[in-house]
This record gives sequence, C-alpha cells and structure tokens, in this order.
Amino acid sequence: MDASALAAQLRSGDRRALARAITLIESTRADHRDAAEALLAAVLPATGKSLRLGISGAPGVGKSTFIDAFGMRLIAAGHRVAVLAVDPSSKRGGGAILGDKTRMPTLAQCSEAFIRPSPAGRMLGGVARRTQEAVWLAEAAGFDRIIVETVGVGQSETDVAAMVDLFLLLIAPGGGDELQGLKRGIVELADVVIVTKADGDLAAAAGRAAAEYRHALRLLRRGQDADRMVMTVSALTNSGVDAIRDRVEAASQSLADQGALERRRQAQAEAALWREIGEGLIEALKDDAALAPRLAALEAEVAGRTRTPAAAARLALAAFFERKRRR
Amino acid sequence: MDASALAAQLRSGDRRALARAITLIESTRADHRDAAEALLAAVLPATGKSLRLGISGAPGVGKSTFIDAFGMRLIAAGHRVAVLAVDPSSKRGGGAILGDKTRMPTLAQCSEAFIRPSPAGRMLGGVARRTQEAVWLAEAAGFDRIIVETVGVGQSETDVAAMVDLFLLLIAPGGGDELQGLKRGIVELADVVIVTKADGDLAAAAGRAAAEYRHALRLLRRGQDADRMVMTVSALTNSGVDAIRDRVEAASQSLADQGALERRRQAQAEAALWREIGEGLIEALKDDAALAPRLAALEAEVAGRTRTPAAAARLALAAFFERKRRR
Repeated sequence: MDASALAAQLRSGDRRALARAITLIESTRADHRDAAEALLAAVLPATGKSLRLGISGAPGVGKSTFIDAFGMRLIAAGHRVAVLAVDPSSKRGGGAILGDKTRMPTLAQCSEAFIRPSPAGRMLGGVARRTQEAVWLAEAAGFDRIIVETVGVGQSETDVAAMVDLFLLLIAPGGGDELQGLKRGIVELADVVIVTKADGDLAAAAGRAAAEYRHALRLLRRGQDADRMVMTVSALTNSGVDAIRDRVEAASQSLADQGALERRRQAQAEAALWREIGEGLIEALKDDAALAPRLAALEAEVAGRTRTPAAAARLALAAFFERKRRR
Repeated sequence: MDASALAAQLRSGDRRALARAITLIESTRADHRDAAEALLAAVLPATGKSLRLGISGAPGVGKSTFIDAFGMRLIAAGHRVAVLAVDPSSKRGGGAILGDKTRMPTLAQCSEAFIRPSPAGRMLGGVARRTQEAVWLAEAAGFDRIIVETVGVGQSETDVAAMVDLFLLLIAPGGGDELQGLKRGIVELADVVIVTKADGDLAAAAGRAAAEYRHALRLLRRGQDADRMVMTVSALTNSGVDAIRDRVEAASQSLADQGALERRRQAQAEAALWREIGEGLIEALKDDAALAPRLAALEAEVAGRTRTPAAAARLALAAFFERKRRR
C-alpha cells in the first residue's frame, strides 16, 4: 500500500480512504506497521483541529440512539462527525456490538458522517494507541467532531477519558440499580452525566435521577458546577439533545479560548511518548527468551517474600543489560 | 551499620531499632541503600502478618485526634500499632505536619505504639517504595496494626490505597464545602467514610452529612453496602470509635478467611516488581547523558506533530540499545 497516495486521499476527505487507513493501523503485520507509520507521519500536521468527545454508557442505556440524534445536530451545525467504537471485549469482526452502522441508521446514511465499528481481535499497541491513531486519521480526513464510543464496563474508559476533550456518560433513570453494569469509578471520569429515557412513564424517574446525580456530584466533587454537569435526554422526543450540543460546544469554545486544549494535547502527546518508551523497554526485556527463567525465579522470590521487588528489579535489569552488551 | 544486628534488634520488637531501620531505608546514600537491601532481605519472611490501614483526610478534619483514640482501642484489644505518615509536600525535618508525636499525645506515650513523622526531602524510589518498605519493617518489629496516614490532597493517596488492606477517609460534617481541600476522586478510593465532629452543635450536621454520603455512595457505586461504609465519630465523646474498630476488624477477618488478603498481597508484590523494572529501565535511559539531545529532539517532534509517540519511542529505544551494545 502506498502511504503517500493514501494520505492524499485521506486529506481530501474520502471516507473509504479513512476506512482503509484505520484498517492499516489496526494490522499487526510488520510491513503494514511501517506503512501505517509513514501514513501517520504524513497526516500528523493536519491533526488536532477537532473536538474529541468520549461517550460511554452500559448496554441498553440508549447510546446509539443518542449518538444518532446528537451526531445529526452536529452535522446540521456544519460539522463532519466521526464515530469510533472502542470495545476490547468484542470478538465479532463484521458486526461488532459498538459502532454498528445499523444502530445509527440516520447518521449512517449521511455523507458528513463516518462510523467505524469496534474491531475484533488484539490490536498492536493496545486500545489506547489504536484509538489515538484512529482519531488522528479522522481529523486528517477533515472530521471536526470525533466521538469515541465505549461501553463503560471495561478497562479502556480511563484511557479514553484521558484522550478526549470531554467525556459524556449516559445513565438510565431510576436510581442506582441501573449502574449495575458500570465499572466503579466511571462516574468520576464524566464531564457531563446524561440521564436517558426522559419521556413517558420514565420522565419523572429521569428527573429524579438527574436531581440525585446533581446532589451526589455536588457532594463528591469540588469546584464543579453540578447543575450544568447533569442533563436529561429523550430518544423518543429528542428533547435535551440541543441543550447537550450547546453545552458541549460552549465547553469546547471555553477550552479553546484559554489555550487549554492545545496545552492538554501537548501534555498528552508527551505522556504518550514516555508510556510508549516504558512499554517498549518492558517488551524488549520480556521478549528476551534467555532471560525468562531468571525473571520467573525473581518473580517467585518476590511472591515468596525472600527478595524485595526493588532488589529483584535491580537484578533483572543487570541481567538484561548484560545480555544487551554481549550481543 | 550492621544489617543483621539491626535485623535481630528489629525482630525483638525494639522501637528504636525500627526508627533507625526506617531512617536507613529513607537514605539516598548508596552504601545505606545496600545495607537497607540486606536488612529488608533479612526481615522480609517475617512480614505480612499485620492489618494495613490507610487513613486520610484534609488538614483540620481531626485525623490525629481520631488516630490517637482509635490506636488506643486497638492497643486495648492486644495489638501493637505503628503510625507511618506520608506527606510528600512536607519540607520540615524534625516536626513534620503529619505523624508529629505531639499530635497524638496518648498514643505517643504508649509502649505498644510507634509513631513515625513524615520525612522531609526526596526519598529514593518515591513515596510508594519507601512507605511499603517502612510497613514491612514495622511488621517485622511485631506491629500488627499499621496505619499509613496521608493528607488526601496530593498524588500519593492512590499509591497508599493500593498498598493497604482498608482505606479510611475522614470528612468534616456540613455538606460538600468541607471537601474543598480534598483531591478529586479520593472518596472513590475509600472503603470506609468517617464523618468527624459528630457532637455538640455539629451533631445534627454530621448525621445529615453521613446520610448524604450514604445516599451518594449508594448511587455512584455498585455492589457496596453504603450503610456500613459511612460512619460518624466524635473526638469529644469518643463515640463511634469502637464501632469503627469493630467494622475494621470484621472486614479484616473476612478478608483473611477468604484468603483474599494473601492473594492481594502477592498480586501487589508482583505489580511492584514490574513497576520497579519499568521505572529502572526508564531511569537507565534517562541517565544516559549521551542520549539526552536525541530524546529532547524526539520530544520536540512529538509536541510539534511531526512524529507519532510510537515512532519516536521506537527511535529512542533503538538509540538506547545501540549505546548499550557499544559499551
């Protein structure tokens, strides 16, 4: 695959080129990885100009219905919207649970939208790197509102929350029971909590739930405006979608005005560099087959309380560097 | 310093030997570090038999008064109590803000208690390693209830929460305002929330605060028994201290019965080993002065969006291993 040709197609806003580019960065083949690096290097200067939104919520809360309506409002305001799904638990290839186009029927038919289902299998560099790279590719293709969708039950929400500009959490009404599926601590990550199903029989329950979340968040968080943080939405009547869009755009504007967005992204990039260096070093050490018996013995000593982790680590490092020297 | 002599004194329960041993592990001198490693290796098999408690709360909440009373109840039940303070912000040497003996007057006079003020300056291996090692030393000296005290405003609470068996958070009554000083997310770390000052004029406010925290925690956390998690205490009348001790001991027994305590500690030890290995590798790379200009250039390229973090990391690793080979 010719990376510079693909980069040019991508920059022209071609959605099929974007789909191919994301497939390329998801590949674990070494030659694909080289092409992916060349592609990313070519498009990187064109990235960073979108608003990045994380949207999470347990299955059944109404995520796809909300994203379908919310995305259309963004498009009506002149934006191009990309939806990228993150679901490490997904095993299916063509029809993953998240990001499935049939789940967002209106958005899927719109030429200003790009929907990417959650990929199957293990990705190179883990969820964080793959998702970050897909965000860059979508930005390079001219999408200026990027939605990263997660299910809120796994390990990837923290990574995603650290990568986006605003993190929206969808909750069903009725008190705490609906949280059953959600990972502990995920409410803490949310910039905006959205109570869904605020219509018909559930309208009163949704209002009560929103009031309770406002109260709880006012209590547990400092310096946060809980009234503006908790909102309600109805998939039936679409009431609330405009208010959420306004709230998101106002927050985006305020981040951009203060230069906070650019500073945060530079800090994120630097942190990513050092995370990659750290993971690369650990991988190199673990990949050295000759070291494996030594590492296993040190692990056993630490578990058996005959050596401290610090002392065992020092021995592991010394053995690793000695092997590097000899080669 | 003779590590094996110090180890023997420590094992006999000598509090002055414990104080000297902690000073040794806090030292950054290379020969001290060697002696500290020898000491830790000698006492390590005698560790792991205590209940480790994290206690956190903002300044003024009543931490020292509570620990003074709580520690005495533990001693009355036949335990030996060590209080280790963690305060990375502390600059003073002899009279640090946390763990100051004059702040716990009853406990300080008791021969079954050991109080260690927060040390000043930068410690080798950071707060997490130093604190973990101090916990081991106190256990080897026969202390079976270890309290790690933090202020709840810094970065070390997550480390401490991951290191202890139960994490207790003290909160002043009166709603959310008292949380002003607390780090966002710290309530999420707590196994037990304790509302202080439940006496006199503030008794009603403390009761209301406890009810609100119960409600908030019931809403935000799944599978947690919020009623048993939130308790009140009075420093004036000491009411509530016994109930908290009973709650802590019951939780401890339940952890031990299920073998969960031992499993958790083995997992903690293994995680510590790999954290130390990762940090050691990064340190070795950063310590290579010849690499510094290359690393600075790569950081600038990542910040300037001309190279991805993954690609820059690969180049940094290649340069590092090439240097190791040449030596």
